[in-house]
Amino acid sequence: MTYSQLFENIVRKRSFLCIGLDSEIEKIPAFLLKEKDPVFEFNKRIIKATHKYCIAYKPNVAFYECYGSKGWLSLESTVRYIKKNYPDIFVIADAKRGDIGNTSKMYAKAFLENMPFDAITVAPYMGEDSVTPFLSYKDKWVILLALTSNKGADDFQYHDEDGIKLFERVLSLSKKWGTTDNMMYVVGATRAQMLKEIRQIVPDHFLLVPGVGAQGGSLQEVAKYGMNSKCGLLVNSSRGIIFAGSSENFDVSAGEKAMEMQTEMECYLKERNLI
Amino acid sequence: MTYSQLFENIVRKRSFLCIGLDSEIEKIPAFLLKEKDPVFEFNKRIIKATHKYCIAYKPNVAFYECYGSKGWLSLESTVRYIKKNYPDIFVIADAKRGDIGNTSKMYAKAFLENMPFDAITVAPYMGEDSVTPFLSYKDKWVILLALTSNKGADDFQYHDEDGIKLFERVLSLSKKWGTTDNMMYVVGATRAQMLKEIRQIVPDHFLLVPGVGAQGGSLQEVAKYGMNSKCGLLVNSSRGIIFAGSSENFDVSAGEKAMEMQTEMECYLKERNLI
Repeated sequence: MTYSQLFENIVRKRSFLCIGLDSEIEKIPAFLLKEKDPVFEFNKRIIKATHKYCIAYKPNVAFYECYGSKGWLSLESTVRYIKKNYPDIFVIADAKRGDIGNTSKMYAKAFLENMPFDAITVAPYMGEDSVTPFLSYKDKWVILLALTSNKGADDFQYHDEDGIKLFERVLSLSKKWGTTDNMMYVVGATRAQMLKEIRQIVPDHFLLVPGVGAQGGSLQEVAKYGMNSKCGLLVNSSRGIIFAGSSENFDVSAGEKAMEMQTEMECYLKERNLI
Repeated sequence: MTYSQLFENIVRKRSFLCIGLDSEIEKIPAFLLKEKDPVFEFNKRIIKATHKYCIAYKPNVAFYECYGSKGWLSLESTVRYIKKNYPDIFVIADAKRGDIGNTSKMYAKAFLENMPFDAITVAPYMGEDSVTPFLSYKDKWVILLALTSNKGADDFQYHDEDGIKLFERVLSLSKKWGTTDNMMYVVGATRAQMLKEIRQIVPDHFLLVPGVGAQGGSLQEVAKYGMNSKCGLLVNSSRGIIFAGSSENFDVSAGEKAMEMQTEMECYLKERNLI
């Protein structure tokens, strides 16, 4: 998917919502456990109920991997189901991969070639040659960790050389490895005020912003400090939407919660005259 | 596996060799492709031929993941095969995972609970709460990236705050998260001279050292600068051993290459009076 297609989808759906499919089997409604693939069944119902309100889905790979090869089948089924039925929706493998070149190439093959993901999250610690193998696929994206939403972000990401923090170096160096058409960055919503500074370094790139909802980030602040002239934001909510309800009608509850977020997003897009 | 068991294995086998199972299907001998699970079949034959000479195996998860759920089956079969037949061998999931707490917990479950790996490699960028979930399993290990063997290591790992480089901060901070009984560090053999400095910060920890062989690192230098009073080294070789031959007798070639490395290691262990 291209940068302009992403923006068109945001305008058309009046939303920059990404829904995280952290589909933990212990948390999905018990009546689904009789299905052959309960996690895939859960995801399908969540997707049917929410696709109108979001422009992206983000399966969190750990929640599939923890069921081994069976979990990988659920992941494969989920991404194929989305791209078949809703090809306009951007699908992100939240995998936080990254290794030496020949190994990153294999991870890229796994997610961007053998599965039809549009993007994969990548960890920057090992530098350029660990990231570039993911950039060789047309219209596919790397979403590089910059400033994360968790407490541990303070441990290394603020390490400061001559006034340049590590996450700032990640941004300024890595933006030369790709373009605004194949690179995005993860910036946690819990650090929303840092978005102002981050926009000085990467004014035009899309940012994937997790941490709204369960982790306590504010959507309003994210929009205020992070939005650019093409929106430039994908704001993720996972547990707050997919586990909004636990009854037989859990999907209806998820749809309502997604619509609520979309409605708030519509306001911010209007405020900036983007729609 | 405990620290002292690891050392006992090193003494008994006169080796600190770890063999990387980067079992790329395009590179395994063609006659194995008729097998139901060619990668597992290849691994079994490599393991049978090399287990006498090594104390650890390290499947590189990317090389399994790139075949999706089928690849995960090969990975599961491989680690179970090793632990069933050679329970004294330390098995490392080279996975470079790391995410917010609830997600790292799922990755830990995948590798340390649902599969019988002894250890997993973890990326440090997201800090303490992304690492500690892996430390809650008795006699299992985190192997944290410190200074890697690739060119991209220069991009961020040397970022210097008041004379403290990022990889040094990773070492000094993270050694408080665990102990010498559940934490090791990745230090690339291509940076062998840095081992002297690294041993100032972590004198007693085990180090996993990749990059000998195909990547150009020297075993002699690694032993010289990195060995401590309990050896404290697991030196990895992957392609140099497992793809040493490509004929029907590829496993014999792999065994010879492993024995060659074990013999060299035996010299260094003797030089230090460890055996």
